[in-house]
Amino acid sequence: MEFIHPFIKELEPSQLEELRQSILYKKVKKGTVLQLQGDINIKSYFVKKGLLRSYTIDEKGKEHVFMFAPEGWIISDMESHSKGLPAQLYIDVLEDSELEIVEKTILEKLTKLKNTEYFDKHNSLLINRIIVLQKRVILLMSATAKERYEDFLSTYPNIIQRVPQKLIASYLGITPEALSKIRGQLTK
Amino acid sequence: MEFIHPFIKELEPSQLEELRQSILYKKVKKGTVLQLQGDINIKSYFVKKGLLRSYTIDEKGKEHVFMFAPEGWIISDMESHSKGLPAQLYIDVLEDSELEIVEKTILEKLTKLKNTEYFDKHNSLLINRIIVLQKRVILLMSATAKERYEDFLSTYPNIIQRVPQKLIASYLGITPEALSKIRGQLTK
Repeated sequence: MEFIHPFIKELEPSQLEELRQSILYKKVKKGTVLQLQGDINIKSYFVKKGLLRSYTIDEKGKEHVFMFAPEGWIISDMESHSKGLPAQLYIDVLEDSELEIVEKTILEKLTKLKNTEYFDKHNSLLINRIIVLQKRVILLMSATAKERYEDFLSTYPNIIQRVPQKLIASYLGITPEALSKIRGQLTK
Repeated sequence: MEFIHPFIKELEPSQLEELRQSILYKKVKKGTVLQLQGDINIKSYFVKKGLLRSYTIDEKGKEHVFMFAPEGWIISDMESHSKGLPAQLYIDVLEDSELEIVEKTILEKLTKLKNTEYFDKHNSLLINRIIVLQKRVILLMSATAKERYEDFLSTYPNIIQRVPQKLIASYLGITPEALSKIRGQLTK
């Protein structure tokens, strides 16, 4: 239960057992689709090992990568998860992965514990997510493709060799050719 | 202290007084610039009345609206505020406004109260911000200008008459002419 441990160090065995029931440990193969747009009763995915991706598909059928999730990251379709709405995003598996899959009910259980340590850690996680998203919006609005690529490298320092160029280009909102040109410029 | 009251109903008078010292009530005139990119020791702004905006300026000198903040919203440069980094965004005043200005230290004080009610409310606020930002990223990546405009209307139902067209277009990442065309189509 790595998903839980960073949150709460001291828990009663009975509390721990109750939380454990809301977490499913699972190995998934590369290529597995974990969530489709429109799914209900959706879950959050904590990546113990491997690599996930979330993405959207526009009216013309084009994919746009929303985020990558290597080891230690959580992918969660926040709006759908917290409000019980249909999923906005697709989630799939880019490398054979080991996951902790978290049901919506665990959030309610954790909240009911009234454990300030949990709230504090959870707050930090949420703030970090806001920081990443704020930067992403600013970059999408106003940065050059090269600046966006540099930000990708600093956000995801360890996945550059693990993700097809096509997906990195999609995350950046540029063509694979434009990405290749930028990489050429930077290695000079 | 409207910024505080929704958070915590039951506080000791001494705690309330300590928090009060971290909140500055201020009336500001339209056109006032509250924060420049690069500012340090930055603050968060709770809008009691009026309208604020945050924005960035790109290399070519072009402005991009990051968000609007009408009554009840908080504008906060989260990364800079929580990590003590220089501000990424400019913040200015679009209408004469009444603000509660919150120092970084208040977050530390609130956290130290170990009040689960506060944490719970704060969590909800953070999740709502994540939801708005996630939607914004998805829309910037993959939606048509018309879909982005419809999202603007649902996110900010009451400011359409209060904000110059030019700024709405900037928020959407389109030209004022394109915005005018979309509005024409929707009123048909």
